[in-house]
Amino acid sequence: MTENLALPSEFETAGIACGVKASGKSDLALFVSRRDCVAAGVFTQNRVVGAPVIVSRERVPATGVRAVVINSGNANACTCERGLNDARRMTALVAEQFDLQETQVLVCSTGVIGHFLPMDKITSGIAQAARQLGGDGEHLQAAAKAIMTTDTVPKVVTHRVDGINATVTGVAKGAAMIAPNMATMLSVIMTDAPLTQADAQAILQRSVSRTFNCISVEGHTSTSDTVLLLANGDPSATLSDEDRQSLEDTIERVCRELSQKIIRDAEGAEHFVTVKVMGLPTEEDCHQVAKAVCDSPLVKTAITGNDPNWGRIVSAAGYAGVPFQESDLSLIVNGVVLYETGRPLDFDDAAVSASMKTGEVTMELRFRLGTAEITCWTCDLTAEYIRLNADYTT
Amino acid sequence: MTENLALPSEFETAGIACGVKASGKSDLALFVSRRDCVAAGVFTQNRVVGAPVIVSRERVPATGVRAVVINSGNANACTCERGLNDARRMTALVAEQFDLQETQVLVCSTGVIGHFLPMDKITSGIAQAARQLGGDGEHLQAAAKAIMTTDTVPKVVTHRVDGINATVTGVAKGAAMIAPNMATMLSVIMTDAPLTQADAQAILQRSVSRTFNCISVEGHTSTSDTVLLLANGDPSATLSDEDRQSLEDTIERVCRELSQKIIRDAEGAEHFVTVKVMGLPTEEDCHQVAKAVCDSPLVKTAITGNDPNWGRIVSAAGYAGVPFQESDLSLIVNGVVLYETGRPLDFDDAAVSASMKTGEVTMELRFRLGTAEITCWTCDLTAEYIRLNADYTT
Repeated sequence: MTENLALPSEFETAGIACGVKASGKSDLALFVSRRDCVAAGVFTQNRVVGAPVIVSRERVPATGVRAVVINSGNANACTCERGLNDARRMTALVAEQFDLQETQVLVCSTGVIGHFLPMDKITSGIAQAARQLGGDGEHLQAAAKAIMTTDTVPKVVTHRVDGINATVTGVAKGAAMIAPNMATMLSVIMTDAPLTQADAQAILQRSVSRTFNCISVEGHTSTSDTVLLLANGDPSATLSDEDRQSLEDTIERVCRELSQKIIRDAEGAEHFVTVKVMGLPTEEDCHQVAKAVCDSPLVKTAITGNDPNWGRIVSAAGYAGVPFQESDLSLIVNGVVLYETGRPLDFDDAAVSASMKTGEVTMELRFRLGTAEITCWTCDLTAEYIRLNADYTT
Repeated sequence: MTENLALPSEFETAGIACGVKASGKSDLALFVSRRDCVAAGVFTQNRVVGAPVIVSRERVPATGVRAVVINSGNANACTCERGLNDARRMTALVAEQFDLQETQVLVCSTGVIGHFLPMDKITSGIAQAARQLGGDGEHLQAAAKAIMTTDTVPKVVTHRVDGINATVTGVAKGAAMIAPNMATMLSVIMTDAPLTQADAQAILQRSVSRTFNCISVEGHTSTSDTVLLLANGDPSATLSDEDRQSLEDTIERVCRELSQKIIRDAEGAEHFVTVKVMGLPTEEDCHQVAKAVCDSPLVKTAITGNDPNWGRIVSAAGYAGVPFQESDLSLIVNGVVLYETGRPLDFDDAAVSASMKTGEVTMELRFRLGTAEITCWTCDLTAEYIRLNADYTT
């Protein structure tokens, strides 16, 4: 069991195959705490949401949460009342296994939109998973695999918290709506540190706004995005300000590393792209500019071609809806200034292009209109992405 | 000279090669009226705009306009003060040829961003074009060709106005920022109908909002988009309400047909897609939903694969930022209802897919929250688009 495969104390997980996926791959995961948890959640802002989002959203933030059940292979989205009943039934089935109330269980689903869940398979799957729970790295890995759709690698991050005897472990899957019909970014973060309900929700929201909300594959927001935080430490224990900050930093770090793993596993991607925007009045302004740059197919294809085509980057910033003058903006790509306070510079095209061929591209858009900044992550857009998403047939 | 290649009276055009394009293809167009024109313009909303946009924008709406000069192969964008001086100089050079004031001339440029114009070539090109003006279809076609970048066909539309003795002729090029470094949608609409300055601007804005502003290739707004309307009829002549409406309808029709030509010529595109959104409180709401659907790479790649993957369409509507409940929405693709008031329907996948293979796809998103509606046009996203935009190197 490596450092990367540790669960916080009193957490157990399982991942099994119950037949939702025709391929026979594992498709049902259970995350269970032997102690009551404070639970927080952040959910998709899409107006069309999966049934599990409706159910979990109304149950957090909360105390007394004990389990999360996740199936892959079917998103249980756009399935009207029947889907909602199925999502509630999933939590009831888990509650029966552990003698809990239904409301102590949260639920997520990821996969194809618009199909009803095979509840017979889910029912026997939950019973099977409950029998196979374990607290070691192997069981954690199994759970991380069971939530995958077209991910090629399971995504798990574990860190110890400096200063207090606690661990933060997170798993995640997907990359926005990257996959054929598989719509979802899901993540479960577990810690044995003590947190109040209000602190858990606040810390999770701040962390997600700087991590999961800063990644984009193609800008298509899923119906099912969900990040859950479970903390099973004693909520009446008080942390010093320093320890609390250390815990928050660790949770944000786990979220950031999981986010980056999603981008590195994005379908068809050949480049990992970091977009830093700084010098605007608010973090929201910076985020808007970063989003326009990250989501432009012309910026993405320039990166695919290792082309330092700065006109595409600057013009994407220009339509982001944030006011600025051209003379307010400078652009640095992989450390080379291409555009300075509104003026095109002579630079060594071949050298910048060569640096992009490493597969790592960092763009800095520097404004001089404020002190806020943000870092976002994206990938390029390749013919392989088109093939994967166009050649899929229902 | 066919109906499609007619100029309104007293308009002449020319299109020649002056060497801005290394390929030797034609790259300079002149549009001249022998009578004073009322002129209106609509320009890119990008914060980063080409120098010609700054110059033309400050000169319209206006009376007394006599000419438009356009070069392709170089956008004269992100070129600071020097670019601005060059754009003004272009209008002065045209004015010298026809004994006009510089302010009677408008200017557009399209092509690579961030390079200075070769003013020696432009100078001799303008003199050459002035000598080659003509009012027949051949000269109109030459001008339409000289504004092309990666367009594969020139785009010209001519219609007579019902009820009055007038013609409306428009030319256009490009498709948003579809081309490697060639950023621009440009259009010049000419008519010999009488229009006041205020009417010309109002009619153009309304027409553009329902036509050019309703197309998208990949959602990347260019630095140089410009649509100009020149009307050289007697502005003191008064049209009946009926005739004025007929003129407005004809101008909107010319804009719509040019917009559709741009989408049909979009790089790599294999499908022409019509997106109708209806039943929301405002036209702006409808536009926002249509834009989210049109710009989603997942919707586009589903169309590439002739896949009636309605979950992608419905979920794109869901993140458009317009409030609705799932039960408010129905979706019809090529006449088949796939999703009705929030419920997935059983439909014949193979039949819908077969209808998509014609290359024509019409999606209707019907809400029940109002009476506004809009129609937008887009294309699919293919591996050929990626190839064209990634394999280009600066």
